[in-house]
Amino acid sequence: MKTRLDRIRQDIDELAKISVTQGPGCCRQTYTKEFAEARDYIVNAMKEIGLSVREDAVGNIIGRMEGTDPEAPVIMCGSHFDTVRTGGRFDGLAGVVTALEVARVMKEDGFVPKCPLEFVATAEEEGTRFSGGLFGSRAMCGQLYENELENSLDLDGISMAQAMREYGLDPEKVDEAILDPEKVRMFLELHIEQGPVLDAEKVEIGIVDAIAGLRRWVVTVKGRSDHSGSTPMNMRADTMLAAARALVRGTAKTAELGDGTMVTCGSVEVKPGAMNVVANETVFKIDCRGKNMDSVGAVLEEIRASLEESVETYAGLSFEVNEILRIESVYTDEKVQDLFEEIAKEKGISCKRMLSGAGHDAMIMSAICDVAMLFVPSLNGRSHVPEEWTNYEDIQKGAEIMYEALCKLASE
Amino acid sequence: MKTRLDRIRQDIDELAKISVTQGPGCCRQTYTKEFAEARDYIVNAMKEIGLSVREDAVGNIIGRMEGTDPEAPVIMCGSHFDTVRTGGRFDGLAGVVTALEVARVMKEDGFVPKCPLEFVATAEEEGTRFSGGLFGSRAMCGQLYENELENSLDLDGISMAQAMREYGLDPEKVDEAILDPEKVRMFLELHIEQGPVLDAEKVEIGIVDAIAGLRRWVVTVKGRSDHSGSTPMNMRADTMLAAARALVRGTAKTAELGDGTMVTCGSVEVKPGAMNVVANETVFKIDCRGKNMDSVGAVLEEIRASLEESVETYAGLSFEVNEILRIESVYTDEKVQDLFEEIAKEKGISCKRMLSGAGHDAMIMSAICDVAMLFVPSLNGRSHVPEEWTNYEDIQKGAEIMYEALCKLASE
Repeated sequence: MKTRLDRIRQDIDELAKISVTQGPGCCRQTYTKEFAEARDYIVNAMKEIGLSVREDAVGNIIGRMEGTDPEAPVIMCGSHFDTVRTGGRFDGLAGVVTALEVARVMKEDGFVPKCPLEFVATAEEEGTRFSGGLFGSRAMCGQLYENELENSLDLDGISMAQAMREYGLDPEKVDEAILDPEKVRMFLELHIEQGPVLDAEKVEIGIVDAIAGLRRWVVTVKGRSDHSGSTPMNMRADTMLAAARALVRGTAKTAELGDGTMVTCGSVEVKPGAMNVVANETVFKIDCRGKNMDSVGAVLEEIRASLEESVETYAGLSFEVNEILRIESVYTDEKVQDLFEEIAKEKGISCKRMLSGAGHDAMIMSAICDVAMLFVPSLNGRSHVPEEWTNYEDIQKGAEIMYEALCKLASE
Repeated sequence: MKTRLDRIRQDIDELAKISVTQGPGCCRQTYTKEFAEARDYIVNAMKEIGLSVREDAVGNIIGRMEGTDPEAPVIMCGSHFDTVRTGGRFDGLAGVVTALEVARVMKEDGFVPKCPLEFVATAEEEGTRFSGGLFGSRAMCGQLYENELENSLDLDGISMAQAMREYGLDPEKVDEAILDPEKVRMFLELHIEQGPVLDAEKVEIGIVDAIAGLRRWVVTVKGRSDHSGSTPMNMRADTMLAAARALVRGTAKTAELGDGTMVTCGSVEVKPGAMNVVANETVFKIDCRGKNMDSVGAVLEEIRASLEESVETYAGLSFEVNEILRIESVYTDEKVQDLFEEIAKEKGISCKRMLSGAGHDAMIMSAICDVAMLFVPSLNGRSHVPEEWTNYEDIQKGAEIMYEALCKLASE
């Protein structure tokens, strides 16, 4: 007979095989043939467990377990089943498989919830095919963008609307996916950490206390392309130097704040790009995240202040900031955090409260209900790459905590 | 009758017309049809003045005025007559035309030097066609690189050797251009400043006290491409941050030294280049110049120290420095500096001692003789662009100083 660990391993490994790529990784993009195959696998698994299964108007799969009080608001548990193009087998799937395993054990144990439970596998969270991201959960929360289905094209120029039709969904009906906030009590999600903290600290489970807010700036600094040998330092309008100073000061601010606020400059373009010419234009992109939006703002304002100081110091310099994204941080339910921790302690599972730096479906769902999240360790913090790895034992520990928590919450 | 100013203007304007491009700028690359036309113009002008003209083995044009002591070492005066691809009419030519005008006035005034004087127009100083740079003066000093004529190709794949043959020179004989250091006493060059100092300070003439030394580093920083949201700042190996810190510290060092040392980062490449991914590789190029090579070294070592500090602080970071160029600084003859200043004062021409940040033929010639340089102002510090401009009046003032100085020096 299969152990619970075996079942988790089998679900993950079988789903990993439903991929365009071979090997340890996984590529399964939304509304593709592989996506349909994975849907069938998940639907079958849910039916075998005894859940009543429906596919919503955007392709989220929902397996429902009725409660003794059918009118009580539902508790949902799950994650996404799409992957990035060169992804691994755990991102999203760890949470989907955990939901399946929790439902399975409930049935085995004869647990009957008071409120209905819904085990969920969401679509297009990664946004890799149509670049929208968090699509399935946004659809449930009524947060689709205007004309998103027509405007979102994949690399082959196929619109989301067309892909939905080919997949068997009606893009005219996406609003039917919207959930009534009155009828949803909570969304619980287990996910891989996608960061190095748990693995480095040898902690088995992360209890997410907040999902980081995010602001993204594209900063364009304009100056003058002077000769690197004949222009004294104080007569330059050096855009690269201004950008470097801003980044260093923004980074120093994160250290000063000390609350986990992060700033990243992963993209820099320097023109004209010659060694002997002072850069007359530098475009650098800033990604700033943290649970405290005031701190995120303070880091960005430090960057702005540094740029303003450069502009005041060097004639001919100017800059422009374009905020291209702003997502507020989300705090998870504190009572559920405590419950997770209590269960972990009882079971002797090591855990720590931590920030989720990446966005997740739970972040979107927080618009309509309370949310809570568990993290399982990512080997070396890697994700979105074929070598992404999480030990199946860790997922099982997460599933155990999720099971106990759901039983408790669903009995209230 | 033409004034001296008219003659300078006419020479510069006529030579500017010998260009691939139209308009205020000039494009005249070495060994092209236009280059040959300009040679003919200069040769004719020299002959009209009464100089005995020769073209050396690499195409430098030399107009000789015999002295009363034919065995005395020669004083040379001139600059280059090639231009960059999108250049102006003054870079190089200002010095060539000054040399012509000085010779002309000497003949008019009946001045007879004691030592021989040679008025020179050099080839391929810019290195725009064959990327060698300072070629004409290097040839005179015996500093050609190994197989340079065969290895140096223009954009059409034509080797320097082939282009020389087509121009009428024999690449087998380039060594004949080498000068005997015993027979050369001094090289004097007037050049446009190519920087903003004289124009900004409204000073008419710059007396170059040194030509900056130059070291160039290509720095490759390697790290790890972590997720920008799920990797705490202290667990990153952020190559862009390390590069920015190094640049800021190197720049701070130039201010601390306060001796005109300059550092420029005009080229940065960041990989993988995504906003949400910490850069796992940053290649940045450093150009560091100054008259004091110890200071240049100190700035570069500050950059290295900063990188080492980053490597010590963040596990997974490493860096590699590749020095791709090192040219020692050159100090010009102090007595000639004083002479220039004395003449300027007598004539009521404002002047200041200054560094040449760019390299010039005089820098190369310093290997075989004493050198001295005059700068004339560059409007807004611009050069190597069609809008490069110097007032003809300023060139005439430079020519006057050069004339008086040469008369004095050639009479000693």
